[in-house]
Amino acid sequence: MKIIGIDPGTSVTGIGIIENKKGHTSLIHYDTIVLNSKKTLPERLKIIYDSCLKCISQFGPDEFAIETAFYGKNIQSTLKLGQARGVAIIAALNSDLKIAEYSPREVKKSVTGNGASSKEQVQYMVKSILSLKNNMPADSSDALAVALCHFNSLQNCFGKTSNKKNGNSWKTFAENNPGRIISKKVK
Amino acid sequence: MKIIGIDPGTSVTGIGIIENKKGHTSLIHYDTIVLNSKKTLPERLKIIYDSCLKCISQFGPDEFAIETAFYGKNIQSTLKLGQARGVAIIAALNSDLKIAEYSPREVKKSVTGNGASSKEQVQYMVKSILSLKNNMPADSSDALAVALCHFNSLQNCFGKTSNKKNGNSWKTFAENNPGRIISKKVK
Repeated sequence: MKIIGIDPGTSVTGIGIIENKKGHTSLIHYDTIVLNSKKTLPERLKIIYDSCLKCISQFGPDEFAIETAFYGKNIQSTLKLGQARGVAIIAALNSDLKIAEYSPREVKKSVTGNGASSKEQVQYMVKSILSLKNNMPADSSDALAVALCHFNSLQNCFGKTSNKKNGNSWKTFAENNPGRIISKKVK
Repeated sequence: MKIIGIDPGTSVTGIGIIENKKGHTSLIHYDTIVLNSKKTLPERLKIIYDSCLKCISQFGPDEFAIETAFYGKNIQSTLKLGQARGVAIIAALNSDLKIAEYSPREVKKSVTGNGASSKEQVQYMVKSILSLKNNMPADSSDALAVALCHFNSLQNCFGKTSNKKNGNSWKTFAENNPGRIISKKVK
């Protein structure tokens, strides 16, 4: 099963595709679409739409997952984010994919075991789960985290063991690697 | 020249198409897409996208105009509105139409002569300019107002006389019809 995850934005949109085959989850593709601020908003929306459509057509994911918005931002950013989300969702629906939505908190909790974890912690766990060595842009690791969150959610639905329960959560990592934790004051 | 105007929303989306032929502006089509609140947001976005695409394909407008968002609403409404806008914009771009955007104030000022006019005043002027007798849902008259605003803007760009200057503004109407103004305290 292949899952595409999207972290939408009108400045940067992250795309990540994972695959689970015989119980093993691996990276298929990730992309970071940096949108030139000199372009008009409709131009940027078209780039997001075309990029999502191209990735879906190229890698043929079975499932599509996207982050719900973070409401703490200002109203103008929220409007822009909404437009980017709408466009990514339409790209998926036009490719006959159903939409799964997760809040940033759900994504973090699913991948790191802590709904309030930092971007770095999310990236660390994404790399650990997918056995990646190199760093990647945060928007791409966020997109991969959304895809992993959806995979975990599907696994839980079908009564299988999620990655988190396999010991791949941030909490388990911290417990197993006390020497790599700089401050012990982390809750 | 045919112009399609859109008043986007995830509860109701208004669509209006006007045509200007030999200096005469007339109504081609209007539609009010009422989106069932029991449907999921992605389902509603798909209906908005498909409706815009169908109207564009059926009536072949040369120009596309859409209202920019009203920032006074709460952040959750703004996110939903953003998604509806993004989807309508992509429908236009996927039909090779360029996007013209106008603020609600610009639309009102263009059609009624007053940027702070009410929905009823906008509807009255839309009906007056397009010589319509029957009332229509406010979202459709708002969409037609966006199309008329874009037409006026294009006319001004090419140095022609806009409808407003022809005496079709709310101000001119009020001056010419003092008996129909209930309160003279209107600024």
